[in-house]
Amino acid sequence: MKIGIIGGTGDIGKGLSLRISDKHEIILGSREAAKACEAADATVCTLRDRNCTGLCHGASNEEAVRDADIVVISLPFQHVAPTLAGINPTYLENKIVISPVNPMGKKDGYFFFDRPEEGSAALAIQKMLPASAKLVTAFNNIAAHKWTLLDEELDYTVAVCGDDAEAKKVVMQLVSEVSRLQAVDAGPLAVAGIVESITPLVLNIAKFNGLKDVGVHFG
Amino acid sequence: MKIGIIGGTGDIGKGLSLRISDKHEIILGSREAAKACEAADATVCTLRDRNCTGLCHGASNEEAVRDADIVVISLPFQHVAPTLAGINPTYLENKIVISPVNPMGKKDGYFFFDRPEEGSAALAIQKMLPASAKLVTAFNNIAAHKWTLLDEELDYTVAVCGDDAEAKKVVMQLVSEVSRLQAVDAGPLAVAGIVESITPLVLNIAKFNGLKDVGVHFG
Repeated sequence: MKIGIIGGTGDIGKGLSLRISDKHEIILGSREAAKACEAADATVCTLRDRNCTGLCHGASNEEAVRDADIVVISLPFQHVAPTLAGINPTYLENKIVISPVNPMGKKDGYFFFDRPEEGSAALAIQKMLPASAKLVTAFNNIAAHKWTLLDEELDYTVAVCGDDAEAKKVVMQLVSEVSRLQAVDAGPLAVAGIVESITPLVLNIAKFNGLKDVGVHFG
Repeated sequence: MKIGIIGGTGDIGKGLSLRISDKHEIILGSREAAKACEAADATVCTLRDRNCTGLCHGASNEEAVRDADIVVISLPFQHVAPTLAGINPTYLENKIVISPVNPMGKKDGYFFFDRPEEGSAALAIQKMLPASAKLVTAFNNIAAHKWTLLDEELDYTVAVCGDDAEAKKVVMQLVSEVSRLQAVDAGPLAVAGIVESITPLVLNIAKFNGLKDVGVHFG
């Protein structure tokens, strides 16, 4: 499959390109295509140093969406609306779109879930997409910089929410191909806000307990 | 310490009396003191059958609060306000109060967080308590019937929220005395809603993945 990542120069783009570009073609998108090409080159070099290969290249955000089978929106919540506004919406039609977006803020030394009016980033983003796009949330609670630590396995549960059963299945399969991630079906998009809010929670747990890279396991 | 449990005939009351009444005096409270006495007797018998002992007795909810050092509110959210209204508030003054309360509902086959106006059960309950009471949330995400399965360890993380550092420390110590529970400081009461909302999430994960007794580990 071709996976196009909006905001692909961030940790998720780097992580996915390092970890699954041997199985899927990864298109890193960026506002500046040159930056995305640089990030893609860096991935290919890292993999080559390890005697691995991967199919990964850079593009503009719009090209990454246009050429992808599955689109990942790897952006801070406040950048999602303006970025999607700059992309031809027909490129998103009928596609699976993955949101790992967690709206959050920080005050008085702790992180909080900055709940959008719609109840979650997922429900807000759904309104920005064509009706035929199939939005699924995944990869929400993985400590950002863990993605790129190739010597460390990602041994977490990924709670996946979505309203399209088939799309959810495809995303759960994709998740399970990444390191040791275990995908679980966490229900419809209506409850995605719970999963999104776990990210400020694990950041607080890390902060208040002197821990690093706290993730979540359900079981 | 004396631990008084409002709604003590439920799973948390049974679980705490079975699991830590060798270390702490447990007072099970109930609307009907006779029912609480029965539940306490059942605990003592179960422990005796295992050649263990425990200090556990039944009382009215009000007596359980009056005689306790630490109060646990083990009630469905909608019963908290009417129950607390029937208890002399001076009995709660200066006491540590533990809320394991998770407001939730079910519709279209999935569970959702039934977010109180205040943002969480904890923030709503805080308004019902005297200002000197020290509210701490704990034990929110433990699968209800796991509490009483004495042959099974509770191997979960308990995210503890509260605004009084000393009270939080006491509660975290208490949590860590129960089976294999690991307490972590999850920040102020302001973010307790995140922890509360994990309970409908784990119920959905259990339901949609054919699992039983799903709990949570942070790490």
